[in-house]
Order: sequence, then C-alpha cells, then structure tokens
Amino acid sequence: MKKNAEYLAKLREVMKEENVDCVIISGTDPHQSELPPMHWRGREWLTGFASENGTNGTAVVLADKAYVWTDSRYFIQATDQLRDTGFEMMKEDGPEAVDLVDWVTEHVNAGQTVAIDGMTFSISQAQRIQQELSDNNIKFNDHFNPFDKIWSDRPSRPKNKLFVHDEKIVGETVESKMSRLMTEVKGELANAVMLSALDDIAWATNVRTAGDIAFSPIFVAYLYVDDSKRILFIDQEKISKEVADHLAKYNIEVKPYDSVLEFVKSLPKETRLLIDPEKTSRGLYDNIGCTPVFGGANVAKLKSVKNDTMLQNVHTAMLKDGVALTRFFMMVEKEYPTGTLTEVELGKRLRALRLADPSCVDESFSPILGWNAHGAIVHYEANEQTDVPVTGDGLLLVDSGGQYTYGTTDITRTIGLGTPTAEEIHDYTLVLKGHIALARAIFPKGTRGGQLDALARQFLWNEGKAYYHGTGHGVGFFINCHEGPQSIRLNDVPTPLEPGMITSDEPGIYIEGKYGIRIENLIATRYLETTDFGDFYNFETLTLFPYDARLIERAILTKEEIDWINTYHARVLTELSPLLAPEEQKWLAEKCATI
Amino acid sequence: MKKNAEYLAKLREVMKEENVDCVIISGTDPHQSELPPMHWRGREWLTGFASENGTNGTAVVLADKAYVWTDSRYFIQATDQLRDTGFEMMKEDGPEAVDLVDWVTEHVNAGQTVAIDGMTFSISQAQRIQQELSDNNIKFNDHFNPFDKIWSDRPSRPKNKLFVHDEKIVGETVESKMSRLMTEVKGELANAVMLSALDDIAWATNVRTAGDIAFSPIFVAYLYVDDSKRILFIDQEKISKEVADHLAKYNIEVKPYDSVLEFVKSLPKETRLLIDPEKTSRGLYDNIGCTPVFGGANVAKLKSVKNDTMLQNVHTAMLKDGVALTRFFMMVEKEYPTGTLTEVELGKRLRALRLADPSCVDESFSPILGWNAHGAIVHYEANEQTDVPVTGDGLLLVDSGGQYTYGTTDITRTIGLGTPTAEEIHDYTLVLKGHIALARAIFPKGTRGGQLDALARQFLWNEGKAYYHGTGHGVGFFINCHEGPQSIRLNDVPTPLEPGMITSDEPGIYIEGKYGIRIENLIATRYLETTDFGDFYNFETLTLFPYDARLIERAILTKEEIDWINTYHARVLTELSPLLAPEEQKWLAEKCATI
Repeated sequence: MKKNAEYLAKLREVMKEENVDCVIISGTDPHQSELPPMHWRGREWLTGFASENGTNGTAVVLADKAYVWTDSRYFIQATDQLRDTGFEMMKEDGPEAVDLVDWVTEHVNAGQTVAIDGMTFSISQAQRIQQELSDNNIKFNDHFNPFDKIWSDRPSRPKNKLFVHDEKIVGETVESKMSRLMTEVKGELANAVMLSALDDIAWATNVRTAGDIAFSPIFVAYLYVDDSKRILFIDQEKISKEVADHLAKYNIEVKPYDSVLEFVKSLPKETRLLIDPEKTSRGLYDNIGCTPVFGGANVAKLKSVKNDTMLQNVHTAMLKDGVALTRFFMMVEKEYPTGTLTEVELGKRLRALRLADPSCVDESFSPILGWNAHGAIVHYEANEQTDVPVTGDGLLLVDSGGQYTYGTTDITRTIGLGTPTAEEIHDYTLVLKGHIALARAIFPKGTRGGQLDALARQFLWNEGKAYYHGTGHGVGFFINCHEGPQSIRLNDVPTPLEPGMITSDEPGIYIEGKYGIRIENLIATRYLETTDFGDFYNFETLTLFPYDARLIERAILTKEEIDWINTYHARVLTELSPLLAPEEQKWLAEKCATI
Repeated sequence: MKKNAEYLAKLREVMKEENVDCVIISGTDPHQSELPPMHWRGREWLTGFASENGTNGTAVVLADKAYVWTDSRYFIQATDQLRDTGFEMMKEDGPEAVDLVDWVTEHVNAGQTVAIDGMTFSISQAQRIQQELSDNNIKFNDHFNPFDKIWSDRPSRPKNKLFVHDEKIVGETVESKMSRLMTEVKGELANAVMLSALDDIAWATNVRTAGDIAFSPIFVAYLYVDDSKRILFIDQEKISKEVADHLAKYNIEVKPYDSVLEFVKSLPKETRLLIDPEKTSRGLYDNIGCTPVFGGANVAKLKSVKNDTMLQNVHTAMLKDGVALTRFFMMVEKEYPTGTLTEVELGKRLRALRLADPSCVDESFSPILGWNAHGAIVHYEANEQTDVPVTGDGLLLVDSGGQYTYGTTDITRTIGLGTPTAEEIHDYTLVLKGHIALARAIFPKGTRGGQLDALARQFLWNEGKAYYHGTGHGVGFFINCHEGPQSIRLNDVPTPLEPGMITSDEPGIYIEGKYGIRIENLIATRYLETTDFGDFYNFETLTLFPYDARLIERAILTKEEIDWINTYHARVLTELSPLLAPEEQKWLAEKCATI
C-alpha cells in the first residue's frame, strides 16, 4: 500500500471524532481556481492522483470506501495513480458517468452526516449538495476542514511578490476600472461588491505576480469595493514597495487575507453586497452579515472587452510569440531527420524559446505536443511515460501559448513531417477552411458565438466528419488564457460578441489512433460599419504564424480562401521579418510563399 | 363616437357591479389559438380593432381609460380603427414598447381589483399577472367574464362538422398515437393528460374540420387520455356518423364541451394530470381536482416528426401546389402588361387556383402579396385601402400556402416584372445563396436550428445587410402552418432538428419604401449517414417551383450553387410537367431552363 492509505486512515479518525459519515473533498481553492496553489491541493495529497500542473478531481470518503471522481482526460492517469491508495476512480463524464451528488445521496443513510469544507465549494455547488441531502433527510456539515490536522507538511499559501501591470500597457487606470465596476454593481441593485475570482481581482487592480497559480499571473486575494472603501485582503508579505504605493494611490487598503471572514461578518445590514454564486465560496457566504445580492455576469464582461491600447499591446505579444514559434518550427524541421526529438524534449525547447523574451512570464497553459496518434487525444500532455520520438511520417500538433506582459497568446499549428498522406492533407484543408470561414465572418451587433460556430464546422460536416470541443474560448489579457463570458461552441452561451473581446478560432479533427489536426488563431471582435441594417462587426486576426502549405489541398479552396491565406502570410512575413535573423527570415519567407 | 363607446360603457357598468377596477381582456380563446373563432373575438367586438383573419391585441379597461396593446404589424390599422371608440393604442413591441403587466401594476392602486377571464389566459400568463399584482398588494379576480352579459349578438361556438383524416394519408393509427402519447405522459411522471391545444388534439385523433379556425383544419375541443379512458370534450353537433364510428373504434368517448370543467374537478387525487402551462387555460387549471403536472414539450415533439407516409403525401401536396403556382405566375406574366392586376385581385386569383384542387380545404394562412414597397412590409396584408396596381418595373413578393388533406404547404417566391434593377438582382441572389446554403446543409444529430441559422444569413451579413425575422418555422401536416417546437432563428431554441421534421427555409431582405425579397421552400430533416463521427442528417427540399432566373446574378454563385439550382429546376420540371397542359409545360420549361 502507498502512504495515501495512511492519510486516508487519519482522515477517517478525524471524521469519526467530528461525527462525519461521508466527506466530499473539492479539488479547488476558496477562489474556485482551475489550478489551485499547492496549499489547496489537499485532494491531490490525500489521494495520490496528482500532477505538477494540477488534476481535476473530487474525492468522496466514507467509513469503508473512498472514491475520486474525474473526467475523461484523466481516466488512464487516475486509474494508475490510485492503485493501492484505498481510492477507486469514478467517471464524471462519458457514457459511464455517475453524478457525484446523486451517488452520495444514494449511498448515505437518512440521519447520517455529509460534510464539506465550505471554503472550497462555490455557493451554487454547496447549495445543490445541501438541497439533495435535505431531500433525503441527510444532515449537512459545511465547515469540515480536516487538512490542518492530518496534512503535516501542508505547503503554506503562496508568498510570491506582486508587481504592477504597467498602466501604459493596460490603457486604463484602476480609478477608471473601479468606477466602471461600481456602475455594474449599482446596475444589479447592490452598493458593494466582493470579488473572489483571482482573475477579476488582477484585472481590477492592475497587479500581477508569478507563481501563485500555474500558467496565470494572478494572485491569491479578495477584493472589496464600495463607494467609499476599497480593501485588498492578501498576505502582507506579497506586497512590494511598488505595489504598496500603487494601491495607496488608488485608495486601496491592504488587510490580512484571513481577516476577510471577520470583515464580511461586520458589514452593516444596509450593505447590499454583490457576490457571484459561481465564484464565491460557501464559506465566505456563510459569514456574510449584510444583505447578499447574487449576480456579477456583467463584472466578468468588463474584463472580457479589451481597449485599443490592450489590443495594440497584444500585437506586440503576437510578434514575440511569432518569433519564438519561427525558431521552434525551424528547429523542428532541422533536427527532425536526426530522430532524436521527442514530444517531451520539444515541449522543453518551446518553453525555453518563449521564456527567452523578458516580457514572457510563463507559458499560458501546459502545452500540448502530440505526434500522430497522440495528436488525436484532445487534452494530451506528454510525460516520461507517454513520450515518443518524433520520427517517420506524420503530423505534429502543437498547441501552446505565453503569458507576456503585453498580453496572453494561445496558438495551435499542425505540421506535416516526412510525407503526409492525401487523407491528412484533405482533413487539414477542411479544418483550415472552417478556421478561415470564422475568421472572415461579418455579423450584426448582438450575434452570439454559438450562431457562428457552424461556420467553422460546415466543411467537416459536409463530409460526415466532426469535432465535439468548442471552436473558440475567450482569452484574457495577461490573465487567464481561458476566460468567459463569450464562447463560440455547439451549445448556446447568451453573451453576444462585443468589440474588443478576444476569442480563439480553433476547429480540429481527431482520427483515433492515427492523427489529430487543430488550427488556432486568436481573433478580436471589431466594429466594422453601420449600415441601414444596423451595426456590423467582424474579426481581426491577432496571431502571426503561417499555416503549413504542404498540408493544403489547393483544389478544394475557393479563390477567396486562397487570397485570404496569401494576404495573411504576406502580413506575417512583413511583421515578423524585422525581428528575425537573416536565416530565419529566409525560412519564414518560404513558409509564407504564395500558394 | 362609434358603437364601441357604448359597449365600453356597458362593460364599465358590469365592472362596477362586480367591484372590478381594471380588466385585462385577452385576444385568444380557451385553447390559446392564434386566430380564435368569432365566439371568442370579444376583444375585437369591444374595441373595433378587428379584421376577418383576426388581429393581435389585448385590451385593458379602467374606470376612466381604455387601451389596446398590439404589435408593430398592426400599429397603423389599430390607430385608425380605434379612433372614436374610447380606446387608445399601446405598443407591445418596438422601441416605444410598454409592458402591459408592468403598466397595469403602476396604474392600479393597492387594494383595488384587477380581473381577467381565466378561461382565455394560459396558466403561465395568469401566473405572471397574479405574481406582479400580489407584489403590489393589488387584488386579483380570475373569473370575470362580462361578454355573456354585454355582447348581445355574440356568435355561438363553431358548429362545423368533423371528418376523419384518412389513416392511409396519415400513416399512423390513433391507437399508435395514443400509445406514444401515454409513453411521453409517463416519461413526465404523470398518468393522464389533458390536451387543450387544438392542433395537438387534431393530430392525436386523426380528425379535422373546416371553418372553426381560419386557415387551419383544427377544431374546438379538449382531449383527455389515460391508460383506461379517452374522452373528447366537444359540441356534439360537430360529430358526423363517420367521425362517431372512428372515435368509437379507438374507444374515444364523446362528452359535451362544457362538461370539461366538471370532469377535471371530479378527477381523483391520485390522477397525475399532465398539462402544458403555456397551452392550458388558467380557468381549466383552477378547476382541477387532481394533481397537476406541468410539462408537455415532448407531446408537441410527437406531432413535429412526420413519418415516411406523411412525407410521401406532402410530396403530393407539393405537386398540387406547384401546379397552382405555375398557373398563377403564368397568368401574372400574361396579364401584367394590361395594368389591371392589383394585389387584392392577385390574392383572389391565387386562392381560387389553389382551391380548384378538391383536396385543398383552405389556404394555410392569409397570403402576403406585396408589390415593390409593400413587399418590404414583412407582414403586409393587402386590402381595399392599401391595394395598388401591379404595374411598372419592380418585384412582386408572393408568400402563400394551402391546407391540402395531403399536407400543408407554405412557399414564397419573389419575381421581377418589367426591368429589374442591378440592386434588386444582387439582393435576390444574396438571399438565394443563403436559402441554398441552408437547404444543402449537412449536420450531426443533436444540431439545433439556431446553429444553422447563420448559414442562411452569411451572404447578406458579408455586405452589411440583414433580416431580423426567423429563417425557418416548423410546419404541421394538414394542421397549423406554424408549429413548434423546432425553429431556425437568431435566438436559440433548445429542440434539435430530428428526421421527419418539416421546417421552412425563408431568408429575405427588405428595403423600406422600395422592395422586399423573400425566398421560401419547405425542407424536411432526413437521416443521411452514420460515420465514425456519429449520425449525420441533411434536408430534403419538398417545395416544387422554380426561382426567377431573371433575378439571378450568376457571377456571384459558386459552381456548387449553380449545379444545385439546375438540378432542382430539372426536378421541378420533371415532376410537375405530367400534371400540366402543353402550354403550361412550355412556360415551366422556360422557367426551369439551365442557368
């Protein structure tokens, strides 16, 4: 047995002491972060199902059984890592999916107690659990936190120093953001707001850090704002002199992170505090002494719309990213014949090339480097166990991005190595046609991403082919690479596309056991014109790197598509060349040659 | 003053007697019919805002003021007809829209009473009114029916005889429908169902009539079904011998229409009665003695999916419709030079040509015949006041359909007369490209209409043009021309397109004061193939009539679009020719010539 079996035994002792019959352990933190800091990786520590970049899972422990629910990305890894830990894996998606809350209510008896740590569940999640337990006469304890007792070497909260995100880059002062934030707050009939989501807080304060959260420069804090007070709840040692001055300039007080619960308890009844039930913890909510107002969709929207200064700076980030990618793919082509490159090695090289630029703080997500069959695994992450050499004929899918102080990038290119097959070329071209159709779309104000999604899928559908992931997600500005509220996907998301929003354009196709193809640029929604029929918008393509012309079946492209590719390639060459060495310029010119 | 002022005074007397301070008068009947029978046209009688084919309006009467809310289709007509009646018009849509319920709560004092006739409001509508009144401490009376007292010459309920819709045409016995209906009822955890919507009842019983409801062969009744009982509540004089035998064959009892309220009152508590809150009246609901279960979306879906026999018969209806349209448009071209044709005259001719076929029971809606500027009014209905001669150069928009026992048709063609302008030709071609793109779409199982909608709009959007009505509505089978639940439109409707559903494909463009263009076929969703990526569907075009080649700008069509038009025209010619006289064949052959 692994050590995890011991941890599990300790947990059960604490459960017994506190009369808990079943505990549900979240995989996130009090801020609902997708990749929480190590301090909140208790579920990973307990179960052994873990990785450096985080795993998605929720544990359920009963007196005699223990489980971890996870999604299809992790089925193989979790099965492997959970062996001899006392935990079994449960599937949260796919045809054998089991609903965790339903399962718990069916396996716990009436009169027994189910516990959670309310600080690590959102208000909405906890509400659903409580409702279903109550319907089944099961007791609910929402303040069960065993980790302080059983996790002896628990890491402390991250202590990384903050820095100011230059207002020249951001194009908007904190004062202006606070004012716009309060307008939205009053629009929801509240008079104060507590932000819990770390990306919202980083946006509102123009402050960033490195290291708190993997792949995102956001930091652990809460932010309270009303008409007369602004308070950042944060571990004091994170505050540098520069940041202290910056916060003081905008009248933002700093208080200890842990004092937030006392603070919300002390708020007077007449404070109508806006909180987002999807992003705020049940634990915080339980402590609120004033009147809570549920809402906040428009606060997320403020962040999603980028101003012109930001869009200009994203262009700088795209130039830097284009340079790194030029060097990377040039290296791949050069060294591929040696047969020594592997997926893991390529990942290291790509990271090094991006981080060579001083403005690149981190990658924007764990890159996906998939050779042939691995490219068909949508969320593939190469590691020592799965790694393969990139040799022979095939397709290499590279989905990666960087966190530049000038903005966040996210790009996928699929290239052919050796001799690509006719089938690979045909599928690549179908994906490219969809990618271009979305990039070229013109649409009236009010259009939602879901209305445009089929433009990217139509050419695959025409041949009975399909991909089932989203075509486009919102992208932050030197914040999270994935952000809401807009989205271009099969299901309908009610937020319309607005000028300044950055979204990805990433159709793909995945042939199990053979290859995966995905082509991704970031595109910004822009105002185009006003006609007798209303306001019309279009997209500006932000990403700068050529497609692989060797994979293009020219015969199935329209004249307009060919023109679009040639114009884009000419632009890529013009923009990137001044930043490249002569040999690199020559390589890029070949890649950008007229097709 | 008109007589309506007298009626209004009488109404106010009754209001006084019954202590009602404000009454809201619905424009519909106990079945939520869009065009109610004359018996339920009390709002029209009272206000004078009326037309043979019905108007959309809701009246609000207070002690000293009276209003009619209506939509933008009727602003001109209502303003005109309401003069000197004591009523003023209020707008329910457009930029000056006023919400009726909000307005009422703001103009009635706390403690006063607002009344409705619960029989003519749906459960959902009444619920909203009651909630808002209650929030404002206003009393609610939901059983105020003044018309029996004040409407001396009130028409009786329609007495039209029913007939059986031949099961050979329908392709499914009533027994089979009852069985499928009960499966859906049990799926919603109910054990009985009361159908109020007249199209649902006509579908379930394979019975029709003519004359109860304008443009639809449905009839006034309620239908109750459980595992052991089936009861049709209907005015007995409507039942012919044939229908009595048919109902008896399927164990459907017949009870008086008015006895439905007593019946639902007498149902035992253990009956879990499925009722659709959007289609069932508050009045019926108030009487229910058993346990109501709200639901019924899947019942509507049963009706929307047509079996292969129905689709084959729709083809017969399309042939008959194509013949009528051939004769109509041939006549238009021949007589147009005389300058004597007018919109109203053309409407009469078109109706006569359709009804010449014995299987055509009625038109399927009030036809839209719009010459030039009138074509730009989306819901234009020509009448003596608006009528214009069809002379000079321009575009004639003809949107019409027939209720054949073989199925319901709905087709729009726009033709050029005289010399069409380059702008008209260009716009026509953009609309046609969208119409074809939707007709040719291939899509995976689970796709909703809203995901395909942009395919029909993209070519207009690319030029900063747009239409804001839906691209496609569901179409019934010898029932209502407009039916749910599927829809192809800007907003998202959650029902996916399923094989057998018939939907319209009708993009358009409207240039105010100049011309309107709309092109409409009916298309059926069909199963196409199963691939490694799942099940794929496509559309079969059902409508058979050529487009106007004189309005096609060939240079902006793709080869695929040209091929599609030529293939379609060849099919139209082949299918319709055997039913036409030689001179008609010749005319059609010219219209269907290869472009």
